[in-house]
Amino acid sequence: LTAIALIRIISTSALDNGLALTPTMGWLHWERFMCNIDCDELFMEMADVMVKVGWKDAGCEFVCIDDCWPSHKRDTQGRLQTDPKRFPSGIKKLADYVHAKGLKLGIYADIGTSTCAGYPGSLGYYDIDAKTFADWGVDLLKFYRRFMPDWHQLGEGYANMSRALNQTGRSIAEVHLKWKIPDYEAIRKTCNHCVKSILDWTADHQKILVPVAGPGGWNDPDMLIIGNFGLSHDQQQTQMALWAIMAAPLLMSSDLRNICPKAKELLQNKQIIAINQDPLGKQGYHTLKGDSFEDTGGPRRCIISVAMLPSWQLCDPKCNVTQILPVYKEMGVQNLFSEVMVQVNPTGTTLLTVSPIKSSHL
Amino acid sequence: LTAIALIRIISTSALDNGLALTPTMGWLHWERFMCNIDCDELFMEMADVMVKVGWKDAGCEFVCIDDCWPSHKRDTQGRLQTDPKRFPSGIKKLADYVHAKGLKLGIYADIGTSTCAGYPGSLGYYDIDAKTFADWGVDLLKFYRRFMPDWHQLGEGYANMSRALNQTGRSIAEVHLKWKIPDYEAIRKTCNHCVKSILDWTADHQKILVPVAGPGGWNDPDMLIIGNFGLSHDQQQTQMALWAIMAAPLLMSSDLRNICPKAKELLQNKQIIAINQDPLGKQGYHTLKGDSFEDTGGPRRCIISVAMLPSWQLCDPKCNVTQILPVYKEMGVQNLFSEVMVQVNPTGTTLLTVSPIKSSHL
Repeated sequence: LTAIALIRIISTSALDNGLALTPTMGWLHWERFMCNIDCDELFMEMADVMVKVGWKDAGCEFVCIDDCWPSHKRDTQGRLQTDPKRFPSGIKKLADYVHAKGLKLGIYADIGTSTCAGYPGSLGYYDIDAKTFADWGVDLLKFYRRFMPDWHQLGEGYANMSRALNQTGRSIAEVHLKWKIPDYEAIRKTCNHCVKSILDWTADHQKILVPVAGPGGWNDPDMLIIGNFGLSHDQQQTQMALWAIMAAPLLMSSDLRNICPKAKELLQNKQIIAINQDPLGKQGYHTLKGDSFEDTGGPRRCIISVAMLPSWQLCDPKCNVTQILPVYKEMGVQNLFSEVMVQVNPTGTTLLTVSPIKSSHL
Repeated sequence: LTAIALIRIISTSALDNGLALTPTMGWLHWERFMCNIDCDELFMEMADVMVKVGWKDAGCEFVCIDDCWPSHKRDTQGRLQTDPKRFPSGIKKLADYVHAKGLKLGIYADIGTSTCAGYPGSLGYYDIDAKTFADWGVDLLKFYRRFMPDWHQLGEGYANMSRALNQTGRSIAEVHLKWKIPDYEAIRKTCNHCVKSILDWTADHQKILVPVAGPGGWNDPDMLIIGNFGLSHDQQQTQMALWAIMAAPLLMSSDLRNICPKAKELLQNKQIIAINQDPLGKQGYHTLKGDSFEDTGGPRRCIISVAMLPSWQLCDPKCNVTQILPVYKEMGVQNLFSEVMVQVNPTGTTLLTVSPIKSSHL
């Protein structure tokens, strides 16, 4: 279910409530647990852990259910029902549990006739489904587009679901997923390059993507797979840095009950989260692609001249440069003529912040 | 320089000396350091670390130089010379240093006109080069085949170099590298699949490869890249397990001075090394390829029936089963009708050992 998405607040009161003023942060079960059973326990334990070991304090607020949660049949009144094997206690009870922890609950549905995994879609049931989600106390809807008989109806469908959610009176954040742009199915097959492919695609389309991102609506390159099995630590740092710069929702999909300490530290890194959660809500642009590194097997040393930084204006007359990744390091006061030396690991990332120093403070 | 190779002892006295009776263990600079400079320091520091923090005790004996070490020109007597910038003190001094630590030194040359990186090859200089290496006190030669004007001369070339090394009177283990079988250059481009590709290729050719491996000569799928940047920990466990089962030389190519503790623990894992260093020297066969795992996002549980294990005979009447990876776990006494439950992480490995229990001990 990897895709580029747009989170949009549809409740009229949403912006007043402060919903999604910064990119959504939380946990989403899919990439790590897919259609596993015992979900009552899984989601409640994850909510427990989020509160107990620093996730909530770090800003993670949402516990999100992805596909596979419903029964294959609606009830006699046309309402979606939970799969009794996966969620024997139902979503309402889970929402209450999650809310009691001071967290919020997300759920998943499809705009068309069927979800990705073949469960009932919402087409023809937008009002009923919106009411069901509101009755259950759901706070966020990931609204996918998998099977739509007539793709021209998409816009109308989204408008109708937005209106339906709005009429429930409950503030529900809505995530729209644009399926297969880019072709994530193909990317998955050579998945070492996932993160890089997402970067390339986003960079190629940044003229469209970047301007629409901002408080209330974010481009979403989907889940963080940090803490899972496929990425080296350097690659995990790369994903975290890119998601931060892209002002992307930080939805982790790993087993928080049993996560490697280095991955946890990375996901809870205050400096990186601060970049992502910057109140201005500006998604970063990809400004330069270089390929001048020598192939020396190990980390590459690289001299960056401050005047070449995208944020060089901040250094006129002076700025503070701080390295956030791969390790925190204060690089001191710099000016437009400064050069800073950084080291970049293969498949890794060096993340810098640049802060202006006002002349009055010099 | 990734390739399948065969290590062969060429000194007549080699087998008596116990050279390469088990797969070579040590460190090889290439994959991590390529043509980096400051090699005097690099190799001496690596030798220091190998002795100080458990590598030598774990069985790592060789400190190996790969390509890029020579000057582009031979001396007036036709001898190879070290690049004065990379090895200002020369190889002899390094060999002395390494020997004083109780370790051995490996070096690299090419059977043809040029090495991979464009340095002088040994064609026409076999006797001189063998004598040079022996004079320097080299203990192992990685003898590559990159540029050979007439490929039919390969066999003759190897025989001549073997004879030349033999005539020096010094016991020098010789590693023959068969270049581009499989096509590692192509594999590198989708490098997440490296380890798996090596497994597949080895499995496809095991009828040829496995019987020729044994004390004195080993199939070599090249360096361990555990502790570097590109593999997740699960993938690192997979490489370690496969190299152990393949009775492959364990030549690490990482920065041992600054290696992640988990990678170090894996590389020094006594149980895995014991599989690799088994005195029988039998390379393992690939016996079964299954694809019955569900795609559930996380670790897969898998029930193995003991009667299906390749080593099932050891369990008649009873055997001890121990899980070595992903974590050590004694699975107790089993018989042919037992089933054991294991968990396999995505891109990871579950490694088991099976030991017979003699009826007299039951």
